[in-house]
Amino acid sequence: MNNFLYRSLEQQLSEEIEQGRWQPGDRLPSIRTLVQEQGLSKTTVMHALNRLEARGLIESRPKAGFFVRPQYKPMPVNAPSSNIVSSPAPVPVSVNAVTQELMCRSAAFDISPDAGTREALPPGLLQLNRTVARELRRQKGLHQYYDEPAGSQQLRDILARRYKRQGCQVDACDLTVTTGCQQALFFALMCLCQRGDLVAVESPGFYGVLQLLEGLGLKAIEIPSDPVQGMDLDVLAQAAEKWPIKACVVTPSFATPTGALMPLENRKQLLVLAEQYDFHIVEDDIYRELAFDHPMPPLQALDRQGRVILCGSISKTLSRDLRVGWVISERWREEIQRLKLVTSLATSRYVQQGVASFIEDGGYDRHLRRYIPNLQAQRDELITTIQYEWPMPCASSVPQGGLTLWLELPQHIDSMQVYARAREQDILITPGALFTAADHFRNCIRISYTHPWNTDRKAALNVLGGILAEINEL
Amino acid sequence: MNNFLYRSLEQQLSEEIEQGRWQPGDRLPSIRTLVQEQGLSKTTVMHALNRLEARGLIESRPKAGFFVRPQYKPMPVNAPSSNIVSSPAPVPVSVNAVTQELMCRSAAFDISPDAGTREALPPGLLQLNRTVARELRRQKGLHQYYDEPAGSQQLRDILARRYKRQGCQVDACDLTVTTGCQQALFFALMCLCQRGDLVAVESPGFYGVLQLLEGLGLKAIEIPSDPVQGMDLDVLAQAAEKWPIKACVVTPSFATPTGALMPLENRKQLLVLAEQYDFHIVEDDIYRELAFDHPMPPLQALDRQGRVILCGSISKTLSRDLRVGWVISERWREEIQRLKLVTSLATSRYVQQGVASFIEDGGYDRHLRRYIPNLQAQRDELITTIQYEWPMPCASSVPQGGLTLWLELPQHIDSMQVYARAREQDILITPGALFTAADHFRNCIRISYTHPWNTDRKAALNVLGGILAEINEL
Repeated sequence: MNNFLYRSLEQQLSEEIEQGRWQPGDRLPSIRTLVQEQGLSKTTVMHALNRLEARGLIESRPKAGFFVRPQYKPMPVNAPSSNIVSSPAPVPVSVNAVTQELMCRSAAFDISPDAGTREALPPGLLQLNRTVARELRRQKGLHQYYDEPAGSQQLRDILARRYKRQGCQVDACDLTVTTGCQQALFFALMCLCQRGDLVAVESPGFYGVLQLLEGLGLKAIEIPSDPVQGMDLDVLAQAAEKWPIKACVVTPSFATPTGALMPLENRKQLLVLAEQYDFHIVEDDIYRELAFDHPMPPLQALDRQGRVILCGSISKTLSRDLRVGWVISERWREEIQRLKLVTSLATSRYVQQGVASFIEDGGYDRHLRRYIPNLQAQRDELITTIQYEWPMPCASSVPQGGLTLWLELPQHIDSMQVYARAREQDILITPGALFTAADHFRNCIRISYTHPWNTDRKAALNVLGGILAEINEL
Repeated sequence: MNNFLYRSLEQQLSEEIEQGRWQPGDRLPSIRTLVQEQGLSKTTVMHALNRLEARGLIESRPKAGFFVRPQYKPMPVNAPSSNIVSSPAPVPVSVNAVTQELMCRSAAFDISPDAGTREALPPGLLQLNRTVARELRRQKGLHQYYDEPAGSQQLRDILARRYKRQGCQVDACDLTVTTGCQQALFFALMCLCQRGDLVAVESPGFYGVLQLLEGLGLKAIEIPSDPVQGMDLDVLAQAAEKWPIKACVVTPSFATPTGALMPLENRKQLLVLAEQYDFHIVEDDIYRELAFDHPMPPLQALDRQGRVILCGSISKTLSRDLRVGWVISERWREEIQRLKLVTSLATSRYVQQGVASFIEDGGYDRHLRRYIPNLQAQRDELITTIQYEWPMPCASSVPQGGLTLWLELPQHIDSMQVYARAREQDILITPGALFTAADHFRNCIRISYTHPWNTDRKAALNVLGGILAEINEL
C-alpha cells in the first residue's frame, strides 16, 4: 500500500470535516464513490477511513457507512469550578426528604420513565432470562434448601476467572455474592468503619453511597471529582493529612454521574496514598465493563497490600431486576460472609446458576459486544442533541464508558426547578443536588444514555432543552 | 341420634386403644365392619370416630380409613429443667466459630443433606416456579429498572389482604418486601435498637436472631421458652422489671426449635407487658400458616398500640430459594424502606409478581392444603420412630405446626458429639447449643420433619437412634 495515498486522503477528509463540509451525523461518501472519485484502491480508501475512525473523527455504522462524529467540547480537566470544594471537611450525611423521594421513585436512568415497559428485550437478555427460568424449572427439591451465604460456587468461580484475566488477584473463596452492588458497598463499609468514622467520597458521586454513609452514621469527606479524571488526589492527600480517613469509596472506571475514567497514574497514586495514610479503598466496579474504547483493569489489579474491597454487579451490564452483585476481599472474607448470613441469609441459587451458565456459554460477552456500541451511539446522539440542537447549548462531560453524563448549566439555573418542570411533562432527569451531601451542584444535572433514543425519548430530550432555555431566560 | 350409642362406641374404642388392642399406626376396623359388628347406623359410627379423631386418638386418612395415632409423651408445661435459666441476665452474644460453621453449611432441615436434589417438586412448587419463570420471560425492558424499595404493589396488596383476614390491622403501604425473613428481622432490630441495647429472646430460640444480635452489638436476655406454651412471661416480666429491655423477639406460632404455640392468654399478657415496660415486639411469623389443627392469628392482630413489628416469609411454606419475605410496621415504615434502599436497593420484581399471581390464583392455599397434612404425617412418623423404635426412647416436643421438634436427651449426652458422629455418616441434626448464646441445651437436638421419610431418611433416622443409644451407654 502506498503510504502517501491513504495519508493524503485521510488529511483531505479530516480537513473537510474540520471546515464543516460535513456536519456531525452526516454520512461520508461511500467507499465505492471514494474509490471512483479519487482513483484509489478499495484497500487504500478503507485504510484512510479506519484511521479517521481511530482518531475519533468518524464512525462506521454497520450496513450504513461512515458518519462524521460530533466533536464535543469536553469539560476541562481539573478546571477550577465554583461547584468544587477545595478544602473539604468531614460532614455528617443527612439526605433530605426530597432527595430520598427522588431516589426511591425516580432516580432512574430513563428520561421517559417506564418507556421500557413497552420495549422488546435485547437478544442477550432474552437468552439470560430463558437460562434463569430453565434453572428455576429444573430446581427439584432444592427449593427446600437455602444456598450457602457466600453464593453459588459455579458463579463465584466464573467471576473470579474473569477478574484474574484482568490481572486481579482474586480467589473464588474471597468472593461473596450479594443483592446487587448496593449490598456489596454496605458490607464493605460495615467491615471497614465504625459509627462516626470518616469516609472520602467522590463529589459529585453516587447518591447510594451518601445514603449508606447516613444510614451507618459515617461522615463524608467530599473530594472534588472532575468529569475526565475523577477524584482529585491532591485534595484527597490534603484531606488525609488533616483527617483520619478510614475508607475511600471510588469508581475508577466511569464514575456516576460524570463518567470519569481515572488514569493509570492516578490509580497508582491512590494506592500509595491508601498505604501512606492507612485507609482502605472500596472500589465500585459496576460500570467498568461498559468501556467504549480503552477498557482498564480494576484498581484492585494494582493492589498488592489488600487495601481494596472490590464491589461489582450485573445490574448495569445485564439486569437490574435479577439483583446479583458481589464483593471481593481476602482480608474481610469471613466478616463479609457473616454479614451476608445475618442480614439476608442467602441469594437465590437458581438465579446465580442461570447467570453463571449464561456467562459460561459466552452469552455475556456476546451481549456486551452488541450493547456497548449501542451505548456509544446513544451517548453520541445525546451529546449531539445537547450541543447542537438545544436552544441553549451546554457543556457536558464526554464519558468513555458507563451510562450517564453530567451537564453543568449556567450558575443561576436551579436543577431542582428543572426537575420539577420536567416531571410535570413526564420527563425525568437527576438533579445535581443528589450527588452531594453538601450544597454543591445545584446547577448540574445527570442524564443517562442507557436507553435507545426512540421517538418518545427524543421528544422528551427536546422538551427538556426548551425547559432549560426558558428557565435560563427568567 | 342416640347419644348413648355413639358414646358407648367411642368409649369402647378408646379403651381398646389404651389397652393396646391396636398399636399406633394400626388401622381400625372399617366403618362398614363396625356397622355390622355393632349393629349401629353408619351415622352413629361416624360420629364416634369423628369424636375420637377430635380427641387426637385416631386420624382419618383419605381413602384408607381411620388409624390409631401415636400417643406421644409430651414435655411437661413449665416444668423446671436444668436447662432453663430462671433469672436471666443480659449477655453480649458471641456465637462461636463452630456454631457459625454449622449455621453456614449445615443448619438445614434435612436429616439426609441434599437428598432433596433428587426429589421431584410437589405440584404447588412446580406451578409456582412456572409462574415466576413466566413473569421473567414477560419482562420486556423492565430489566433496566429497579423495583421500588418497598416492593411490588400487587404482592403487598395481596399479603395485606391475607393479614386483614386474620384480624390484623395491616395496610399495604406499611409492608416492605425483603430478602426473606432474616432481612425482615434485621430491619426490625435496626429500627428498634442501638448498639448495646437489651433484647429478650426465646431460649431455646432461633439461632439467626442470636447471630443478628451479635452482628448489631445487642445484648440478649434469654427467656426460658417451653416446648408447649413458648416464652415464660413471668420470667420476662421479672427481667423487664430489672433491665431496660428495648425489644422482644418472639415466634408465637411454632417457635423453632420446639414448635411451641403461645396460648391466646399469654399473647394478651405479652402485649400488656410490652406496654407496661415500654418495649417493642418483633413477631417472627414465618411458621404460622403451617398449623395442623388450630391456626391462630398473628400476635399483631391483638396489638392496638403499634408495638409489634411483624416479619414473615414464604421460605418455610413455599420456597427458601426465592428469597421473598416481608416486614410490616406502620410506625417504622419509612425507616424500614430507607434501610431496604441503602442496604439492598430493591427486590426482584418478576419474583414478586410471580408469587403474587400464584397466591391470587389460589395456588398458595391449594399448596398448603396438600402440604400441611403431609407435614403432620411426617411429624407423626418422626415421633413414632423416636418414641417406639429407637433403642433408647426420648421425650420430644409435640408441635402442633411448623417444621421442627425438640429432643431432650439424658444430661450426660453431648449433642455436639452426636452431631459429629452423625455427620460422619452423612446424617444431619442441629445441636442444642445453636439455640442459645449461653451454655444451655447441650443435651438437646432439633430434628425437622420438613421432608418425606423416604428410605434414605428413614434409614438415617434409625442410624441416629443407634448413635444416641451408643453414646448413652458410654
